[in-house]
Amino acid sequence: MGEKEKLKYKIDVAAGRKQAPKVFKNGKILNVFTRELITGDVALVAGEIVGIGEYRGLLEIDLEGKYLVPGFIDGHVHIESSMVSPGEFGKVVMKSGTTTIIADPHEIANVRGIEGIKYMMESSRGIPLEIYFVLPSCVPSTEFENAGAKLLAKDLETLINKEEVLGLGELMDYPGTIEGREEILDKILMADKKIIDGHGPEITGHELNAYRTAGVITEHECSTLKEMEERLRLGMYILIRQGSAAKNLPTLINGVNQHNFRRCLFCTDDRHPDDLLHEGHIDNNIRQAISAGMDPIDAITMATLNAAECYGLSKIGAIAPGRWGDFVVLNSLEDVSIHSVYKKGNLIEDLWAGEKEKNVDTRWVKQTVNLHDVKIDDFKLELDNEEVRVIKVLPDSLVTKKKVLRVSGKDGAYSTAEGEKILKMAVIERHHKTGNVGIGLVKDFGLEEGAIAMTIGHDSHNLIVIGDSDEDLLSATLKVAEAGGGISVVSKGELLALLPLPIGGILSEEPMETVNEEFKKMQGLAKERLKINSKIDPFMTLSFLALPVIPEIKLTDLGLFDVESFSFVDLRI
Amino acid sequence: MGEKEKLKYKIDVAAGRKQAPKVFKNGKILNVFTRELITGDVALVAGEIVGIGEYRGLLEIDLEGKYLVPGFIDGHVHIESSMVSPGEFGKVVMKSGTTTIIADPHEIANVRGIEGIKYMMESSRGIPLEIYFVLPSCVPSTEFENAGAKLLAKDLETLINKEEVLGLGELMDYPGTIEGREEILDKILMADKKIIDGHGPEITGHELNAYRTAGVITEHECSTLKEMEERLRLGMYILIRQGSAAKNLPTLINGVNQHNFRRCLFCTDDRHPDDLLHEGHIDNNIRQAISAGMDPIDAITMATLNAAECYGLSKIGAIAPGRWGDFVVLNSLEDVSIHSVYKKGNLIEDLWAGEKEKNVDTRWVKQTVNLHDVKIDDFKLELDNEEVRVIKVLPDSLVTKKKVLRVSGKDGAYSTAEGEKILKMAVIERHHKTGNVGIGLVKDFGLEEGAIAMTIGHDSHNLIVIGDSDEDLLSATLKVAEAGGGISVVSKGELLALLPLPIGGILSEEPMETVNEEFKKMQGLAKERLKINSKIDPFMTLSFLALPVIPEIKLTDLGLFDVESFSFVDLRI
Repeated sequence: MGEKEKLKYKIDVAAGRKQAPKVFKNGKILNVFTRELITGDVALVAGEIVGIGEYRGLLEIDLEGKYLVPGFIDGHVHIESSMVSPGEFGKVVMKSGTTTIIADPHEIANVRGIEGIKYMMESSRGIPLEIYFVLPSCVPSTEFENAGAKLLAKDLETLINKEEVLGLGELMDYPGTIEGREEILDKILMADKKIIDGHGPEITGHELNAYRTAGVITEHECSTLKEMEERLRLGMYILIRQGSAAKNLPTLINGVNQHNFRRCLFCTDDRHPDDLLHEGHIDNNIRQAISAGMDPIDAITMATLNAAECYGLSKIGAIAPGRWGDFVVLNSLEDVSIHSVYKKGNLIEDLWAGEKEKNVDTRWVKQTVNLHDVKIDDFKLELDNEEVRVIKVLPDSLVTKKKVLRVSGKDGAYSTAEGEKILKMAVIERHHKTGNVGIGLVKDFGLEEGAIAMTIGHDSHNLIVIGDSDEDLLSATLKVAEAGGGISVVSKGELLALLPLPIGGILSEEPMETVNEEFKKMQGLAKERLKINSKIDPFMTLSFLALPVIPEIKLTDLGLFDVESFSFVDLRI
Repeated sequence: MGEKEKLKYKIDVAAGRKQAPKVFKNGKILNVFTRELITGDVALVAGEIVGIGEYRGLLEIDLEGKYLVPGFIDGHVHIESSMVSPGEFGKVVMKSGTTTIIADPHEIANVRGIEGIKYMMESSRGIPLEIYFVLPSCVPSTEFENAGAKLLAKDLETLINKEEVLGLGELMDYPGTIEGREEILDKILMADKKIIDGHGPEITGHELNAYRTAGVITEHECSTLKEMEERLRLGMYILIRQGSAAKNLPTLINGVNQHNFRRCLFCTDDRHPDDLLHEGHIDNNIRQAISAGMDPIDAITMATLNAAECYGLSKIGAIAPGRWGDFVVLNSLEDVSIHSVYKKGNLIEDLWAGEKEKNVDTRWVKQTVNLHDVKIDDFKLELDNEEVRVIKVLPDSLVTKKKVLRVSGKDGAYSTAEGEKILKMAVIERHHKTGNVGIGLVKDFGLEEGAIAMTIGHDSHNLIVIGDSDEDLLSATLKVAEAGGGISVVSKGELLALLPLPIGGILSEEPMETVNEEFKKMQGLAKERLKINSKIDPFMTLSFLALPVIPEIKLTDLGLFDVESFSFVDLRI
């Protein structure tokens, strides 16, 4: 059908002159415009709502009095944190009622730049989950490490006008933005009238005004009500985040009121497989908001209409003519207990069953582990009761503490004068075969034997390895490299477990359930065989030990970095 | 300065590194995002807000504790109803706090088509009042008359991508839309993802769904709460109208609540000079809303942020960084008593004082009265106690009643058997010299001697003349024609008054005050010398006597039109 014929058909069905191809009947429909429940039939043509009222359909879906609410929207998420491809991510989150996400492919972009983003876009195109993108604005995240790519405005420009691209992703270089650094201004001007997402925790006053004046319009990094209020007043949208690590919702939900309501929405940012599978996705945000005392209708409106308006997506976010038939059928509003989910009027199980294997070109995102010929000498460090800077890890935290200790040892086995075991850690540049190896020492990680290596290392995703012997460090490193990236657990030369992450060294090609199972098995082995401190999540902790923007001391491929002085320091005092 | 340099300068000022060129100090700032009053300084660069907080400026404006609220927005207005050019309109409404309007040049388009619209756009470009346009979707309004132009999708397409064009204007042919008539579908598809304004009073149920499905997203023709509620539920924005004739606000304001609040805004649609000069513009809507019990902050938010969001105008509608410094300074929130008005940070008086005479090409919109060689015989009608259809006018109403009476007379002087005077009216096609003359009879208009002619005749703007002698009918007609359009009042061959409206025969080139004074003088003369019924507004009534969509009986250049049977009828039974 031509466009005109299609429109005519929709109008005919809406006007009741033709029978609707599909009608959802007997639902309690949540109207997010008026925030009330109404009864009626919802008529669809080609997945688009054309009428609400009394309609007969060729195909009728009887909702038996259940609630029909709009599909949920995640305003900001890194798919990569789920360790699976967009398709596998979609299969899981759609069961939780998510029908649209705004994805920021920041991680894969740090590995493979524009090609990484293109892989994500191609993998997302046409799949049942509707995926929009914001372009990673800060690759690499810092200048204190070598990432796989460096993205300038001219690179991003090649993608900014794609239909699925909504704008520029989280502008984490807020100091540079506030300073008005040229490279950032170029990116802002490149984004022109599109969305610019923020990532500016704690900035306030003049600096926040400068950040907003630069064009930043959303913020998902608020952790206090004061931050939230100041940003709302400056006209920014607030994305209330409930991720796996960062859980801001319980605090921020208290800052939402009837006056600022329409400027608040939800996001997850980073969510791990186990949480996605067992706790849910945006439905979890909604449930948490309701638990905190919010009216379920308001909470769902935040997850739908508010998100759609923030990102200018006029075809979603509500159950009304002209919008897609993206529905979550709920048994109960209070529990957000999901009966079924529809995307463009189709049951998601049915959509996924009919989904063809995508033939995405993965050449550019596979085999991304490009190491020099790593030898045991790369890890060499001999200490004879010398004063050194040690990274102290803290339970449930991305923050580390800087300790100065006297340490002795060699070949990977170190201890303090008091006999406390100290681990060796290395960050190996793995994108461009530079041969860069940063060496550091770690305390309180609690590993008692063996080594762990992984190619997930925020945000540059170099190869990170930690262990108590140079042989195991080397072995774990080589196993990961052979697999084209992933996570390995080694003890005394034996490979205990290997989770291959062939896409960019950060994503699996397997379903999320499989990845989660493997990952949990690996966590178990790490605890049992490597005897890692039970208070430490070893992989999560390790993956952030190389991120030089979080205090106090981190290790990159360029060496030990003191975040407080914002400079490299020697291991030895 | 290049774009980058400009952005850098704004960021520098926002961050406090450079002194602001202009700062508004000591105001109680209305924050429409959080609907609260805050205190602080507002810093501007090049008319754009860059910071709110503590700022020092090279130029400081001390607001002395007055209220600083965003400039008001009229969501839908026909400038032509003010009988002046966009510039003269702007001078008046800006004093009332209006800084932006969305104009629908429907009237001038009926006279001169695309050239008429272009004249309005050119006259509006760069003047202090920010004017956006929607393109008239229904020219001519009906097929039962000859207008000056016929606009098809391919004509509108030439303007749709202009920066100041927001979409398609009021889709008054709602029956055609609901039917899915091809010509209308073409226009809808042409507008693509832009706004489509509605004009669909009273339609409900399936028909309303069809109208919405066609793409209509706003409605300004609601007169009942039921209509308003049904449209809000379907995801339409409601423009609450307070015009000179149509005053829907007192009713509709009761339908606004905290749940649907953000989907409601204000408009005036049609407002006459006297009302604009003495009662105001959107400030009048706000005052009326407050009188009806609405919180002043909410009422102002409707007139600002809500309107901006409805039309996707992200640079206006709020006082926040990244938006224009469009301010209304109020002495009091409750009374909306205006102290001063700023557009892009400049006092409007100052802006108008610096405004250069615009050199707009008026060739295409002047000399639009293109009559055949009108002779006294054109008015010929002899009746000898014959049964005829008579148009009965009603006070304060656009609706007429259809009466069948026995009438005798000739040469313009008619009466019933009972001796009641009956007037002759003619509608003369005046755009294309077709020679079409429609002749009708009118009762209860109350004119006792002379004739009135005018080239304002909704919506085709043919020449309308009414009187009690053929000689005066001819004389009034010729006087208006000589003036290139306007309004004439004649009695016994004497020209009592003439208001020239040289632009399209509907707009003056004079200031609104002058036009209003002339117009009121003319109204006085009509009452005193022509002895028109004191309950009748003669010019307003006359201008709608040729609009064949309002019941019960009207006259067009093609003859007498029975609106109820929707067909032409003979004068004689």
